[in-house]
Amino acid sequence: MNSLKPIDELIELMAKLPGLGPRSARRAVLHLIRKRALLLGPLSEAMAQVATHARECLNCGNVGTSDICDICADEKRATGELCVVEDVSDLWAMERAGVFKGRYHVLGGTLSALDGIRPEDLRIPRLRDRVEAEEITEVILALNATVDGQTTAHYIADQLEGRVRLTSLAQGVPIGGELDYLDDGTISAALRARKDI
Amino acid sequence: MNSLKPIDELIELMAKLPGLGPRSARRAVLHLIRKRALLLGPLSEAMAQVATHARECLNCGNVGTSDICDICADEKRATGELCVVEDVSDLWAMERAGVFKGRYHVLGGTLSALDGIRPEDLRIPRLRDRVEAEEITEVILALNATVDGQTTAHYIADQLEGRVRLTSLAQGVPIGGELDYLDDGTISAALRARKDI
Repeated sequence: MNSLKPIDELIELMAKLPGLGPRSARRAVLHLIRKRALLLGPLSEAMAQVATHARECLNCGNVGTSDICDICADEKRATGELCVVEDVSDLWAMERAGVFKGRYHVLGGTLSALDGIRPEDLRIPRLRDRVEAEEITEVILALNATVDGQTTAHYIADQLEGRVRLTSLAQGVPIGGELDYLDDGTISAALRARKDI
Repeated sequence: MNSLKPIDELIELMAKLPGLGPRSARRAVLHLIRKRALLLGPLSEAMAQVATHARECLNCGNVGTSDICDICADEKRATGELCVVEDVSDLWAMERAGVFKGRYHVLGGTLSALDGIRPEDLRIPRLRDRVEAEEITEVILALNATVDGQTTAHYIADQLEGRVRLTSLAQGVPIGGELDYLDDGTISAALRARKDI
């Protein structure tokens, strides 16, 4: 079936995307072929654009289309607050919430003895440099509440102790969360951090 | 955030794929940006190839890169058996099983009074023509075991009755299936069609 070669190749590449397997890649490609004028052409063009222009910010690790991302380039965001996140997707989540007005530092992962990821493999040395260079007054450790995330937070806190105010996101009941569905750890954290009404 | 425009556009287009929502589209795009040399470039190129070359077979509705698909063009597959399926994905599933040696006819959907899909909206008139022109001796109705699929099968059977042998796929317990997890309809169909050992 030589005439199917470009289609098979596309399916194979699509199946490498996170969240898609061989089956859903086939479905997606059939959908794309049906909507080739409306969707496949524009998608191919958009991918070519991103492939050419996307790069990581040399300062913070955010993705964008310039060497210094919009947030690092925006003087209004030099508030002295630096929010440390594991990944660009966490930065995007914070930005969608729209409440943080400072700058970010994307580590690019977490420390992991199992996977052999050391501080030098992440943007931790760069974080130390930025705390000095950008007159940072507060570092907010917004790492995931996983074992690796918390280990990494502890390591960074150790490194920066005494040089800057260190904070972390509050733990508690999520908005709209039902106690019955929450794990014991969250409930006990929420109880310990209870507030007067 | 103008520097994010190409990235946002790509996320918006990716979210239109079946099986991906805004959240998984963001994840997929971040993954693509990280692997832009290995994955994003080739994927963009593969999509451009498919966008340019993919077309539906004028004879059977299968997708390929020529006006007549490989199966219709293959003289060895002129066995007189014609397998009618709803969609190209069903044709691919049959081909993966690798047991059917005849040709296919892709309807492009099912009749549906609710959605206003009439026989002329599907490849049903074309099916009648093919039965004559290609000296078909058996039409296998391999439509999905849904209400719409079975309605369509009945309609086609009515149209072709007396002109050709009409068969449908056997219904029964799937290989590896556990009775406890099967619906009543499947169990009763399997019992009715029971075989001597």
